[in-house]
Amino acid sequence: NRHGAILLVNCDSEQFYHKTPDSDRKHITAVSDLNDMSPMVLRTKGPAQLPPGYKLTLHISRGDAEKVRVFRSTVFFPDFVKRYPLVLDDQVLSQEVPYQEETKLYVEGLRFPDKDFDGLLKIHLSLLEPISEDFPETPIYTDTVVFRVAPWIMTPNTLEPVEVFVCSTKDNYPFLKGITGLAKKNNYKLKVCYEYKNRGDRWMQDELEFGYIDSPHQHFPVVLDSPRDGDLKDFPYDELLGKDFGYVTRVPEDEEVNSLDSFGNLEVSPPVTVNGKHYPLGRIIIGVAFPTSAHGRNMTKVVQDFLWAQKVQEPVALFSDWLYVGHVDEFMTFVPAPGPKGFRLLLASPDAGYKLFKGLQNDGHGKAKIFDGLGPDEEISVDEILDNERLKSENDYVQNCIDWNRDVLKRELGLDDDDIIDLPILFKLMEDNRAVAYYPDMVNMIVLGKELGIPKPFGPKVDGRCALEAEMTSLMEALGLNCTYIDNFASYHKLLGEVHCGSNVRRKPFELRWWNLEM
Amino acid sequence: NRHGAILLVNCDSEQFYHKTPDSDRKHITAVSDLNDMSPMVLRTKGPAQLPPGYKLTLHISRGDAEKVRVFRSTVFFPDFVKRYPLVLDDQVLSQEVPYQEETKLYVEGLRFPDKDFDGLLKIHLSLLEPISEDFPETPIYTDTVVFRVAPWIMTPNTLEPVEVFVCSTKDNYPFLKGITGLAKKNNYKLKVCYEYKNRGDRWMQDELEFGYIDSPHQHFPVVLDSPRDGDLKDFPYDELLGKDFGYVTRVPEDEEVNSLDSFGNLEVSPPVTVNGKHYPLGRIIIGVAFPTSAHGRNMTKVVQDFLWAQKVQEPVALFSDWLYVGHVDEFMTFVPAPGPKGFRLLLASPDAGYKLFKGLQNDGHGKAKIFDGLGPDEEISVDEILDNERLKSENDYVQNCIDWNRDVLKRELGLDDDDIIDLPILFKLMEDNRAVAYYPDMVNMIVLGKELGIPKPFGPKVDGRCALEAEMTSLMEALGLNCTYIDNFASYHKLLGEVHCGSNVRRKPFELRWWNLEM
Repeated sequence: NRHGAILLVNCDSEQFYHKTPDSDRKHITAVSDLNDMSPMVLRTKGPAQLPPGYKLTLHISRGDAEKVRVFRSTVFFPDFVKRYPLVLDDQVLSQEVPYQEETKLYVEGLRFPDKDFDGLLKIHLSLLEPISEDFPETPIYTDTVVFRVAPWIMTPNTLEPVEVFVCSTKDNYPFLKGITGLAKKNNYKLKVCYEYKNRGDRWMQDELEFGYIDSPHQHFPVVLDSPRDGDLKDFPYDELLGKDFGYVTRVPEDEEVNSLDSFGNLEVSPPVTVNGKHYPLGRIIIGVAFPTSAHGRNMTKVVQDFLWAQKVQEPVALFSDWLYVGHVDEFMTFVPAPGPKGFRLLLASPDAGYKLFKGLQNDGHGKAKIFDGLGPDEEISVDEILDNERLKSENDYVQNCIDWNRDVLKRELGLDDDDIIDLPILFKLMEDNRAVAYYPDMVNMIVLGKELGIPKPFGPKVDGRCALEAEMTSLMEALGLNCTYIDNFASYHKLLGEVHCGSNVRRKPFELRWWNLEM
Repeated sequence: NRHGAILLVNCDSEQFYHKTPDSDRKHITAVSDLNDMSPMVLRTKGPAQLPPGYKLTLHISRGDAEKVRVFRSTVFFPDFVKRYPLVLDDQVLSQEVPYQEETKLYVEGLRFPDKDFDGLLKIHLSLLEPISEDFPETPIYTDTVVFRVAPWIMTPNTLEPVEVFVCSTKDNYPFLKGITGLAKKNNYKLKVCYEYKNRGDRWMQDELEFGYIDSPHQHFPVVLDSPRDGDLKDFPYDELLGKDFGYVTRVPEDEEVNSLDSFGNLEVSPPVTVNGKHYPLGRIIIGVAFPTSAHGRNMTKVVQDFLWAQKVQEPVALFSDWLYVGHVDEFMTFVPAPGPKGFRLLLASPDAGYKLFKGLQNDGHGKAKIFDGLGPDEEISVDEILDNERLKSENDYVQNCIDWNRDVLKRELGLDDDDIIDLPILFKLMEDNRAVAYYPDMVNMIVLGKELGIPKPFGPKVDGRCALEAEMTSLMEALGLNCTYIDNFASYHKLLGEVHCGSNVRRKPFELRWWNLEM
């Protein structure tokens, strides 16, 4: 709980490349690798030489040995590889180090904090005294340094984008064009994952989550690879892991992975303060089964454990199992906004949807059609929607599910009703009474600074203009945000996803450094 | 971190008797069992009846379900067993409860805090609203209560004894008589474990550790059964577990048990304050391998994890692997004493031993013999001891090992040199350079209030009086303590143990209640 030394998990490609061909790596092979490690200096004060038989020994416990390695810097070897010999690892828990005025060492983290690891590592130095040749030396002085492994940190929608990720498929040209335009408009980098790599899996949001690790000497992005493992499964390791781009994953050993394990079901709030408690890096948000249900779907335990163990963005569990796909991004998102909190929570709202449609009917637009222009099979009038009692009771049920989450979000993020904007979105129920969006789900959007890329809802037209877009644009423009509606009807909505599900954004890290948090 | 409700692990015999014949217990079978549970009252304020279809549901998470059960009290059944039906357990995570002004429930803890369980349990109540018969009810309000499971607490030598435990064997009559006399003198209860049960295993200290659990409504002793499992292994379960006497054990699944797993290697200090941090229930003390050694013996991980997880007596790890048997009680104990700290730490000290023997030689008693009267094979003179250079260097090594522990104890218990008394005890090395006491190890004593039962050292006699006893008695009488020397030479010392190893003491709980600690 005090200030101390920080260690990064050396999870970028230098680490991984070494591991694969040569798991017994005994040296540092690249100078860039040194940058990922924390320097540790051993300084001695005393006689020019130790008396005969006395020794300095560096040592770690067996428990810590699988989480840390220590290398030593020597000046004797012109060969770079020999210049940084391994001192401690899981095979060598204790090793003599030279007695000299100053010894430079490099410490490498190997494991992120997790359920069984609080992130603290101890490295000990002992001075050993000889009794006689017959007996073991005994320690007469021990000093200890503690390192804390830097947590994996997620980046909310309010942070500035760096790079936008999207898949190219045979059938998604309008979508790809829409996203590309938005990224180019703001000069964000764009990375397209092509079909040879995505094999038709377009759900870029679901396969991975971008985050970063940070220390005073170094920081770099780290992708958390979802255990979902669709056809995009090799993308994070093959295409993202790189020099100064880290990789971490958690895969359950004896649990089935389900749709709630996709990372459309893993989001993070902007910074919040709740009853005086500050969360300056926000709070992670995941969706799980409703607690009164014994047989619901849940996010797998190993991923939940990992997320909770990072500690700096204490997670909030919402109820998302009422949705057929089951992802929190189907009913909520955050957008930057003026005001002291700096953001608004957007929630899908069947009530707001029915209010809008009733207003249209009252104003004489009952014959206007949603899905206008998508063909006679799809089109359906405002009157028909409002006459459908079954649809109404399904949406009452959905509203109840969202309201329960709304209460949790208000309580756990310290929000007032003024901080929340209800978007007119209807749902319908599928098998098992689980819900999907009735028309393209506008809350499932991509947020790029002040630019929003929103699923084009294909709502009823009034005077040639989509009434849903008009309402949405009006709500967002009041916050200074610009709306771009992207047609994802055939290529995403019909496959039960939308813009957010089909994209991903790497963002700048927080300016606030995590080690300044009270933990 | 705030005041809240407390739960006991229902680990006494009512629980165990039910578990063995009927692991699917669905009712409370004895009124005494209710006393071990925490009452939980559900009070409602609202209309006389809920509107049709609305329900109150009590629920727990899957993770908590293996650690807690909830029973409900009904007045309808004259049959006691039916009067307390099970509401929640690991099979039923959610169940409707009646809507009435007041419902009385009983909550039962099933698991002690451990590495994977911080001791906090949540029980939720939700009000469910029906939408229509076709859909699941949705929760519209949820309330939650948090319980903390009471930790297992050890009792230091400074607490008043209640009951003394010792084994009877074919060959230990003088020892048994000595302990019996001490217990009777103070009117402590005495429990003798006879040979049919101990099967020759006399190490009553090593098979078990006494502790207790405490809550505002109930407290009782709980024995921690060591994974040592010598021939005494059935004694804790068969003879100690009882009505209001709990039982807990931890056995490693895939690790070999060794001598450091005996509970002569598990002690607890009196209350201490260290750099302003209070440990009003003392600190647990265990012995492990020295950290610079990669291949030493250690206390098994599952027991260490259990001890650390209790949190209220944060453990200190000493270095005991230098001893052949490897128990901390071979070189240290605590005795009550006047002064602000209320105790002294006694340490075995080869240096103090050599000082005493040299003093005898200087005073002309070099021909006096230790082991006097135990036969010519055993007897050896002060001069011979002092002439043995090998023995001296062995003891220098032992002193270094103890000094390292002395430094740890001073630092971790906040002790000064004045708080520590060095007892004149010599060691010798066996195979692997591991140490055993050269003559009966006086520090390995039983502490019963102000009465000390000390291994009779058979030291050199001066004017007919044992010089070791004289020194020991003089040191202890200065603290107001009475020494009784018990002959355990043949029946314990020769088998590498002493008085403490062969006895055990159940003590009164602390008056301070653990939930008043800052955690």
